[in-house]
Amino acid sequence: MRHLSAPFPSTTAAGGARAVERCDRLGIAPYSDMAGGLFRAYLTRGYAAAQDAIAQWMEEAGMRARRDAAANLVGRYEGTVEDAPALVIGSHLDSVRDGGRYDGPLGIMLGIECVAALQAQGRRLPFPIEVYAFGDEEGSRFPAAMLTSRAVAGTLRSEELVVADADGVSLTEAGVDAARYLDARRPQGSTLAYLEAHIEQGPVLEADGLAVGTVTGIAAQLRYAVTVSGMAGHAGTTAMRLRRDPLAGAAAMVLAVEQAARSDNSDAVATVGSIEALPGAANVIPGEVHFTIDVRSGVAARRDAVAETILARLREIAEARALTIAVERIHDLPASPCDPRLMDLMDEALLGAGQPVRRLVSGAGHDAMNMAALCPTAMLFIRCRGGVSHNPAEHVEPGDVQIALDVMLGFLDRLERHWRTFRA
Amino acid sequence: MRHLSAPFPSTTAAGGARAVERCDRLGIAPYSDMAGGLFRAYLTRGYAAAQDAIAQWMEEAGMRARRDAAANLVGRYEGTVEDAPALVIGSHLDSVRDGGRYDGPLGIMLGIECVAALQAQGRRLPFPIEVYAFGDEEGSRFPAAMLTSRAVAGTLRSEELVVADADGVSLTEAGVDAARYLDARRPQGSTLAYLEAHIEQGPVLEADGLAVGTVTGIAAQLRYAVTVSGMAGHAGTTAMRLRRDPLAGAAAMVLAVEQAARSDNSDAVATVGSIEALPGAANVIPGEVHFTIDVRSGVAARRDAVAETILARLREIAEARALTIAVERIHDLPASPCDPRLMDLMDEALLGAGQPVRRLVSGAGHDAMNMAALCPTAMLFIRCRGGVSHNPAEHVEPGDVQIALDVMLGFLDRLERHWRTFRA
Repeated sequence: MRHLSAPFPSTTAAGGARAVERCDRLGIAPYSDMAGGLFRAYLTRGYAAAQDAIAQWMEEAGMRARRDAAANLVGRYEGTVEDAPALVIGSHLDSVRDGGRYDGPLGIMLGIECVAALQAQGRRLPFPIEVYAFGDEEGSRFPAAMLTSRAVAGTLRSEELVVADADGVSLTEAGVDAARYLDARRPQGSTLAYLEAHIEQGPVLEADGLAVGTVTGIAAQLRYAVTVSGMAGHAGTTAMRLRRDPLAGAAAMVLAVEQAARSDNSDAVATVGSIEALPGAANVIPGEVHFTIDVRSGVAARRDAVAETILARLREIAEARALTIAVERIHDLPASPCDPRLMDLMDEALLGAGQPVRRLVSGAGHDAMNMAALCPTAMLFIRCRGGVSHNPAEHVEPGDVQIALDVMLGFLDRLERHWRTFRA
Repeated sequence: MRHLSAPFPSTTAAGGARAVERCDRLGIAPYSDMAGGLFRAYLTRGYAAAQDAIAQWMEEAGMRARRDAAANLVGRYEGTVEDAPALVIGSHLDSVRDGGRYDGPLGIMLGIECVAALQAQGRRLPFPIEVYAFGDEEGSRFPAAMLTSRAVAGTLRSEELVVADADGVSLTEAGVDAARYLDARRPQGSTLAYLEAHIEQGPVLEADGLAVGTVTGIAAQLRYAVTVSGMAGHAGTTAMRLRRDPLAGAAAMVLAVEQAARSDNSDAVATVGSIEALPGAANVIPGEVHFTIDVRSGVAARRDAVAETILARLREIAEARALTIAVERIHDLPASPCDPRLMDLMDEALLGAGQPVRRLVSGAGHDAMNMAALCPTAMLFIRCRGGVSHNPAEHVEPGDVQIALDVMLGFLDRLERHWRTFRA
């Protein structure tokens, strides 16, 4: 298969660097809505300016650019087989406030570079490629998440469109017709597969010394709000033997959460991110403690097993300390596995690009998890420095992005050979 | 010694109940400055009204009442030996906001009941008794604590009198001449001893089924502010093995604090009352955690040994988890032991009143700790329900207060026999 690994030697050499440069250009005014950093929310001025720039880059790469009914920017590069379903390559254009430049846009730029590489060779695949710049993944403007990829996948409900931003501006007032919004849905049978490249937003690839990795799916999530109640008291006058201290109990519980995920020896992760002791004075034994638990795994059953272990330990600890405990499940998101055949093609493309095969789960949500309702999905993770994202310090190495582009092109080569078996 | 236990059978029978009733009367308007609860701060309208009522009760008990230069109310019952130093019996008249009725006033009322019992028998002790209603123990108005007992003991410095309340009102504007304030100091050699009865504000006596107990002293306190730093990260994307989670580390530390005090098997107590994880979102591994540690013991060396054990364990935990830790000592209050001879007299009085002897340390501060700079001190703790105080639910049983009064009268009998050995 070695001959498949580098069919575009002359054109792709600079593609990775250009993708990074374009993300950097989009990281400042007029493409950002905040001074001194990047904040680009759905349907803002910065958003419109960024769409204009990307539309031009799409056209230069040989695509026809359009805005769909959900205000996503879509570039289409035709294939050779009539009515063949399209491969969608995409990611999101919006950012969190004071965010990084690569979380989202890098996947769009890599889609454009894939097409640019094909165009440079005057080459077309049997199926069309559509590059999507999704508008609303971060949910940083409207109180809803991933409106745009859910509209495209056809899983968005019209009642979810009755939203307003912090200034009371509705979707229609913001510039997209809410009544036509669901028309952004891709027609039945029109989508071959979905491919998304994204920075890892975690430290796993960096720790293993790898530039890229095949994503096995989006993790299933469970989130709990826990309240532990004991007996408040004076820190100076209450003998140790007479205490029912909910914070000491919660401390044992936090360690139990960590231990349950660690000892599972799988991809499962469990986190206590927030804790509060009430009344919260240095000289008062708390009467009540609140904390959260977040449990994830690429395999829902594994997540559930870890969560069950945690909850059993919490009840034991509460009982042993004569504390009462209330656990509320506040979030339950199913796993969204990537397509196994596409993962195999991605692994082959990794090997073809001289990279070790490494599979990893995505603990964070991505547009791909919505697109999975529409078609088989594949994701490629790219190493980012320190695993940092949602932060101006977010950083990728252009060399890593070049490797990602080589892998994506190798993936296209392999999909070209097998695409008929993926027809929807 | 049994004959000494009930020299005032007819007059003291109702004294305990009356002391409780008077506290209850002072718990509402016009003696409280808040509607629907008790808040009586230093030098307020409620404070003045309460002083007027108490002054009348003092006079009825045969005392001459006066207001000293620090606006403390003082009632004096003369003794038989000329120029003998006075036994001061006292506690505080002020309360916290929405506080309980007995924390402070009960000790004043018991002082008045002691004198009333002597007067009813037409009896005078060789030494005078002065009952103090201290004005400012809780520090609930001015940003200073225990101004009044420190003024009486002579340990207050004039620069500490430059304070204003939340409305910008100075001490002088509030009705006490700051320039003369330090004149409240009791003259050299004028004080035989200080006796304070107070609710325990803790659960020890209740747990042991005892009405009262001899206080061995005010605990030495140490307070620390701890910051644990690790590496913030995405709760979904950061594998367990790659985490440096400061909240998991802090949890181990909270347990170490508890364990250090528990395993000391002494009066030492150690408490984490406040904790905060930053940034504090359910889906983010914290990057930094702040918490407080409060360590107390009646014996400073014991407190220090427990604190040292705690800090050593904290450093070990931080090192094992690759976390950094910063510990700041924010509070260091020395122990204030009660006088051993007076404790012996109190124990004898307990036995004389048919009570088991029980000694316990006071974890909370009291006016007695300031009076210790002036003279030997003694304290008697009274059981309060659930150990609750600083709360409207604060409760004492009149029967327990009656026992306390009997013990105090027995203490006076014994002090009468031994007082010459206590002359300052």
